[in-house]
Parts: sequence; C-alpha cells; structure tokens
Amino acid sequence: MARKSARRAKRERRARRDQAPTPAYLTREIPYVEFLGEDGLTRIEAQADWLIQEVGLEFREDPDALRIWKRAGADVRDTRVRLPMGMARDLCKTAPKEFTQCARNPERNVRIGGRDVVFAPVYGPPFVRCLDKGRRYGSLDDFEKLVKLTAMLPSLHHSGFVTCEPCDVPVNKRHLDMLYAHMRYSEKPFLGAITAKSRAEDCVEMARLLFGSDFVARNCVIMGNVNTNSPLLVDKVVTEAIQVYCGAGQGIIAAPFILGGAMGPVTAAASIAQALAEAMMCCAFSQLVRPGAPFILGNFLSSMSLKSGAPTFGMPEPVMSNYIIGQLARRLGVPLRCGGSLTASKVPDAQAAYESADSMHSTALGGANFVLHAAGWLEAGLVTSFEKLILDADRLGAYRVLLSGIALDDNAFARDAYGEVEPAGHFLGCGHTMANYETAYYDATMSDSESFEQWTERGEKDAMVRAHERWNAMLADYEAPAIDEARDDALKDFVARRKAEMKDAWY
Amino acid sequence: MARKSARRAKRERRARRDQAPTPAYLTREIPYVEFLGEDGLTRIEAQADWLIQEVGLEFREDPDALRIWKRAGADVRDTRVRLPMGMARDLCKTAPKEFTQCARNPERNVRIGGRDVVFAPVYGPPFVRCLDKGRRYGSLDDFEKLVKLTAMLPSLHHSGFVTCEPCDVPVNKRHLDMLYAHMRYSEKPFLGAITAKSRAEDCVEMARLLFGSDFVARNCVIMGNVNTNSPLLVDKVVTEAIQVYCGAGQGIIAAPFILGGAMGPVTAAASIAQALAEAMMCCAFSQLVRPGAPFILGNFLSSMSLKSGAPTFGMPEPVMSNYIIGQLARRLGVPLRCGGSLTASKVPDAQAAYESADSMHSTALGGANFVLHAAGWLEAGLVTSFEKLILDADRLGAYRVLLSGIALDDNAFARDAYGEVEPAGHFLGCGHTMANYETAYYDATMSDSESFEQWTERGEKDAMVRAHERWNAMLADYEAPAIDEARDDALKDFVARRKAEMKDAWY
Repeated sequence: MARKSARRAKRERRARRDQAPTPAYLTREIPYVEFLGEDGLTRIEAQADWLIQEVGLEFREDPDALRIWKRAGADVRDTRVRLPMGMARDLCKTAPKEFTQCARNPERNVRIGGRDVVFAPVYGPPFVRCLDKGRRYGSLDDFEKLVKLTAMLPSLHHSGFVTCEPCDVPVNKRHLDMLYAHMRYSEKPFLGAITAKSRAEDCVEMARLLFGSDFVARNCVIMGNVNTNSPLLVDKVVTEAIQVYCGAGQGIIAAPFILGGAMGPVTAAASIAQALAEAMMCCAFSQLVRPGAPFILGNFLSSMSLKSGAPTFGMPEPVMSNYIIGQLARRLGVPLRCGGSLTASKVPDAQAAYESADSMHSTALGGANFVLHAAGWLEAGLVTSFEKLILDADRLGAYRVLLSGIALDDNAFARDAYGEVEPAGHFLGCGHTMANYETAYYDATMSDSESFEQWTERGEKDAMVRAHERWNAMLADYEAPAIDEARDDALKDFVARRKAEMKDAWY
Repeated sequence: MARKSARRAKRERRARRDQAPTPAYLTREIPYVEFLGEDGLTRIEAQADWLIQEVGLEFREDPDALRIWKRAGADVRDTRVRLPMGMARDLCKTAPKEFTQCARNPERNVRIGGRDVVFAPVYGPPFVRCLDKGRRYGSLDDFEKLVKLTAMLPSLHHSGFVTCEPCDVPVNKRHLDMLYAHMRYSEKPFLGAITAKSRAEDCVEMARLLFGSDFVARNCVIMGNVNTNSPLLVDKVVTEAIQVYCGAGQGIIAAPFILGGAMGPVTAAASIAQALAEAMMCCAFSQLVRPGAPFILGNFLSSMSLKSGAPTFGMPEPVMSNYIIGQLARRLGVPLRCGGSLTASKVPDAQAAYESADSMHSTALGGANFVLHAAGWLEAGLVTSFEKLILDADRLGAYRVLLSGIALDDNAFARDAYGEVEPAGHFLGCGHTMANYETAYYDATMSDSESFEQWTERGEKDAMVRAHERWNAMLADYEAPAIDEARDDALKDFVARRKAEMKDAWY
C-alpha cells in the first residue's frame, strides 16, 4: 500500500520534473549574508560620498556629459565633476530596484534586481581555448559556437555579448556579426556593443528591427556593459554608451574594474568605496539622461600577486568584497552585478575551479543580481574556455537549489519513514525515499561520482575530457530556434548595409 | 619624504610578517551566516527531540553503555534507549563550549569551539594517489610522508590521525606506528585510535608517555573520532571510545555519517535532524561518562547520485546543511565538526576543486570549529591525494584572511593616497601602496597568476604538476622536530612491547 502510493508519487514527481521548464532566471529565497555591521557599511558609504564631494571624478572626451552635469547643478571645473553631499544618492533613487529585460521569446524574459538572479557567460576574451585545438585567437566560428552552447545551457539565463572576440572580423564590424548571432542562434536576452557610439547605435537599431520600434520604446531589450577608467575617470565610451542605451529607454551596466594597488588603493575598504563612488556617479548620470532608466551597479575588484603585480582571482579579499558590495547595493536600492567564475589559471584545472568556486559562491550568496563571467572565464579574462564554460555552468545549476533554501514541510521531516525504517535499518527502498529521491538532490551532470573501477573502465576521463566531449555532443544536437523570416531578413540587410558603408578597420 | 617613510613602513611590515609565527589555529572575527530563521531551527530541533524521545536510539554490543543510560534514568528497553524530553539537552550542558587540545610544543596548542577554528587533514583512506605512482594501497612510508607534510603545511593546525591507512602494517598494530609517527614527526596535536577498545587504551597510554601522566590527567592531549552507525544506531566502537577517551579526561568527536536516502531520509531537513539527534545522544553519553569531557558535535551529510546511488560531495544540499548545522551547534553550545574539502572525483582535477571549494567555503563560513578532511581527501574518501593535500592546504590559507574580515581603520581607507594620486592616475608607486602591498593580499603559493607566456616558458605546468613538485621539495627540506630522548625511547619501547604481545592480525 505504502509502496504503491510511493510509486505513484514517484511517477508524478518525475513527470513534474520533466515538464518543468528551465527557469528563465533564479529567485533567492534564503536570507542575505550580513558580512559587515552598520558601522562598517556607513564608513564605506561616507568614503564614497567624500570621493564624490571632495575629490571628484574626471569626465573626459565628452563635452555633452559635462553639459548634462552642469545643467543638473554639479560643481564642474574643467573636466572634474563634484557633487554636493547627497546629490548622487538622490539621483540614484529614480533607477528601478528591479526591472525586466525582454527576450525575443517572452518565456526567456529575465528579472534583474531585488531577489532575482541572472547568470551570463564570460565577456571580452580575445582568445579561446579548447582541449583539442589549444589556445588561439577567437574567430566568428568560435563565437557562434559559444552563443549556441550558451543558448543550450540551462543554468545560463542570458546570452551576454562578447563571449569571445571574433578576431577574424574587422573591429569596426564585429558588433554586427556578434549581435546578429545572439539574435539568431539564441532566444535568451543579450547585451550590445559599447566600444564606439555608432556601434551602440547600430545595436539599438538592430534591437528595433528584431522587437519592433514601439516595443523597444516601452521595454528594456538590450543593455550596454561599460567599465569606468579607474581611478575616478569616466571616459566617453561610458558616457556615450549611457546616452545611447538609456536615451533609447534601454539598460546600462557600469562596472568599475579595480585592480587593488593599481587602479585603486591596495586596501579592500578603499577599493570597495572607490568602486561604489564610480558606479554611483554612473548611475546618477544615467538617471540624468533618462530618469527611470534600468541601471545595474557593477563591481569588479581584483587582488594582486605579491610576486609579480599580476591580477589574482578567487582570493579572500575579493570574496569578502562580494559579500560587502551586496550589502551596499541593497542599501542603495539598485540591482548589482559582481563576481563570476573567475580565475588566473591558464587551463581549466584544479586552480581554475578552486578560484572560480570561491568567487562564485560569494557572488551568489552575496546577492548579485546579474552575474557576467558566470561561466567560461579563464586566464584572468584573456581566454574563453569551451570546457570551462561547460564545467562552470554545471556548478551554476547548484545555485538554483542553494538560493531556494531547504524544504521544511512535513514531507521534508519524513516522520513516516521512521515508522517504516527501524534504527539500524536503511532507507534505500522505503516509501519516503522512493517518493522523493528523483527530486531530492541536484544532479550535477559533469561530476563523476561513480566508483574508481567504473571510472577506469570508461577511460579515466577527468573533468576536462568529459567537458570536451559534452560540448561537442551539444553542438551536434543544436537546433536554431525559429525566427520570423521578415525580421531575420531585415537584420541581415541591416548588417550587410552597415558593413558596406564602412571600410574594414582593425583597431 | 612620503616616499622615505613609506619605505620605512614597508621594511617594518615585512619584518613583522616574517617574524609572525604561523597561527596555531584561526579565530573568526566575522559575523555568522544565519541561513535559517528561528522557526526553521526550532522545527529541526523538535524533530531531533522527537527522535530521541519517541523513536529512540539503539545502543548495541556494549552492556556497560546500557547500564550507564539506565543509571542516568533513561528509558532503556532491550537495546533501545529513549530519553524524556529535554534530558539530552540538559546533559549536553556540561560539555565545554570551547577547550584547549595541548600539543607537545605548547605554541601549537589549539583552541576548539566558540569562534576558534582548527583545520586537520583527511582521515581514513585505504588508498593513496600521487602523480608519478598513481593509485595504490597506502603504506607506512606514505603515512609518514603525509604526517611530515601536514607538520610543514602552515594552514593545517592539527595532525589528524589516519591520514592514510598504512596497509603494510597488520591491522591490530597500525595504531601504534601511526600514533608514534604523529608524536615523533610533528609538533601539532593529534587524534588517537578508536577501532578497538584496547587500541584506544594504547593511544591514551602513549599520550601519557609523551606528556606525562599528571599532565594528561589535567589536560586534553588526544581525542577519538567516531561515527555513529546511522540510522540511530550507536555501537560499541563509539561507546567504548567515549569511555576510554572521556574516562581519561580526553576528548571525543562523534560524527554521524549520513548518506541521505540510505542512512537517513532522502530529504535534507530530516537528515540534519537525525544527525543532530545522534550526535546529541553521544554528547549526552560522554557527559555521563565524565561531566565536562571535551566533546565535538560532528556532522557529515552526503547527497546521492540520482544515476547510481553513489555518494556525491560539494553539492548544494550538504552545502546548505553546513550553514544550518553551524546554527544548531551554536544553539546547543558545543564545538562543531563538519564539512571539509570533499569530492567524489578520482583525480585532483576541476571537479575535485569545485566540489572541495564549495564544501569548504560553507564549512568555514558556517562556523565549523574543527574541520577534519580539510585537505587531501579524494574519491569519496577512499583516497588520500598527495597533490590535493598541497592544493587544498593552499586554499585553506585564504580562510585566515576571510575569517579575519576586512580592515576599516584610517589606513584601510587610504585618504592620503588620493592626495598623492590624481583621478586617472595610478596607485602602483604611491606611498600607501608601498607601505601596504606586502601584507595587503593573501599570497596563494600554489596559484599561478603569471602571464601565459611566462607559464609556457616554465613548462605549462598545471596545478597538479606544481603540487607534485611542491610536496617532493617540501619532503626534501623536512627536518624532524626535537624530542626528549627519554620520552622517545619510552614510546619506542611501548610500541615494540605491544607489538610483541600480539600476533599479527589483518582484520
């Protein structure tokens, strides 16, 4: 009787699991980690305010940006911008605490901010690496493969943008091929180019072709991701991207990248405060451009090797920073981008995984809402690793469980099982186990938990080899999602026309 | 002027760093993670109380244990022991919240409990693995090497006990050789044997020879580490070890090992509650044997592969459990052992490192006080990896920084540096950087953060290869600590005599 109902329950659970769609994004159900107390947080905020009020930030190469600041009442001398106490925070108040970025398949729309969490792949590497071909410059072929893999990986919610640099395409035309690939080969939301104003404008125009101009005017469908030029310099790449994306009602991510001891002081508290000041100023600027524009507060702090001055990742100082910046972003009330699966290792070995895991654990528990570099990052961000993309993404799946917390209902306490199983017995076949085991534990498909003998029989494959086989098998199974033909043609025409209008440029 | 004082400060900091002894243990300065709220914790405790009161635990093969329970007023029927509501918790109250385990070099004494944290190596594997010799049964030679490496690794505070099984020594004599090696080749504190009552007694006797009987009567110098026989069975290995060690004023660690779905229900809440019930009963028993005996509440929960039923490690369910059991142990007021650098991987690859890092991050942040398996564990605990011992230990060093938290003094905020470095400048040579950089960041010696070109020139060594070179170089430099000759002779005589008294037994 118990056995029969257990079997039925098992069938129902399996059916629910198989039918359950991959979630478009995650929602955190567990409490936040309060790493610093009120006093510490207040001191960091006071330092950020002091930087904005007393030291000021440079806004260079963009007279429009200075005009916008002056009009708002900022203290602008030459290219130095200082704001009176409280002004930056006040301006940040119109930025949404949480917003939706729409995908071309509405089921893949993501919510960014609040308790919602979105994972995106690595951004920016000029090189790629895989097990059979080694390390080389990325190509458009590599790029398209990475977009397709990202589309298929259930724990990546967002397609990102420069998953690798397609170095065989002229620099001034890459953004067209890259954005077209995201639009065509994936249904997940994406970012757009920021390296030049015209490229950002091209991307917004392509978004209008894909989604329709009316839809784009009313919804966030694309975002730019920019780095300030730390310390305390915001150049035109940043201010122009903000003007293009936010001006069109789209989103912006502004992330100070601070290598402590180079682009900021060598001490963590000062670097965190400087990053907060720089990102707050970008947020304030975005809200001057368009009040209510979706903004993500970025933070990217790296420690340094004492031997060489090279950046290091996954170390305890940035791990702490992830927890602390999470608290600061919640106090400011804007969505947070930080962390990722970061490492300085040259190959997806144990070093890469230790560093990535510690970085990502603190990123997720710390409360990041948008995690760029969540999978595939290698060699301090110079390389996209096909194998690490797969391995990182498999670990990301665990955060769906961890952020959901633990079940505490009657089924979770299993008192009926203790009626069935006596002390010193075992729970392997009992009704509660049969009814629950298929959904009880995260199924990490890239982890080998079989016996040594089984593992040996199957060829002694380590994680890298298994990941290599996996991504090749995935690509063999890949099917492009359907797309409206008229829109696809319009996109292809736009790409062809814009390419024809420009000479190739390799810088 | 600024440069001169910076140089002086740098010299002073370097001198301080070089003179600073490796800490004998860590002390947590950061807040705890409150993963579950009051209601959830109360429900788990209520379930543990229900198990103790209603279901009861089996105490088998040890009539003395049943007599001790009866004398204390427990409800004992046949071998089933039930305690009235509240009795187990009341008995636990005499266990110290924190205690000192003494080492033969008092500078290596460790504090266990409260905010103090002690890392110990893997315990129990019959096999060892290293890069050049592969996987094979452990030998006494391997064992002694592992003890020497543990003695040298600054982030391991404790020597543990069965770092691997010395399978070339008869089973009934191994404990003598193992304990002698810990006593002779290391100055760090150690555990003792538990596999048979006479072996535990031998270990206490050897401790008396090393420390002196009077000292042992007044101080904890050795502890036994036992597993309950989950579900809800405590056999004589456990109760006899408690009687021997606690009876002699020494410590005991009792850790339920629960593979969810086999030795406990498949749901995390029930497994956590069962582990709490089993460990509380061991604690209560230890306090009946000797009120005030040092006791460490153990917890070892594993998830299961859905494909094969094999145990899995570093997965989100045990990660959550680490955070939750930390809260429960603090409420009970006894020191906690949980977690470690755990993995099911067969080799020290990316899988091993991801799983170990997530397991260890939650172990450390969750508030474990004594971490067995903190380094060297491979293949679900069947194998001790020489390379992973080195790699794990390097990562453990980061927890010294993480548990210390972030500096928030004036130096940390570096306002003077912003006087020296203008916006858009760099901090590389500024006074604040020069004065702080040598102590600013954790120096992970096993992480390679150099450029691809440097890494290639140096032979493209991945983490495993570097770790292999490292432990071989360490052993070449090893020097045994001095030991009082009379005591050493007494120990050697004892070992020889006990060996002569017994026939070899291989079971």
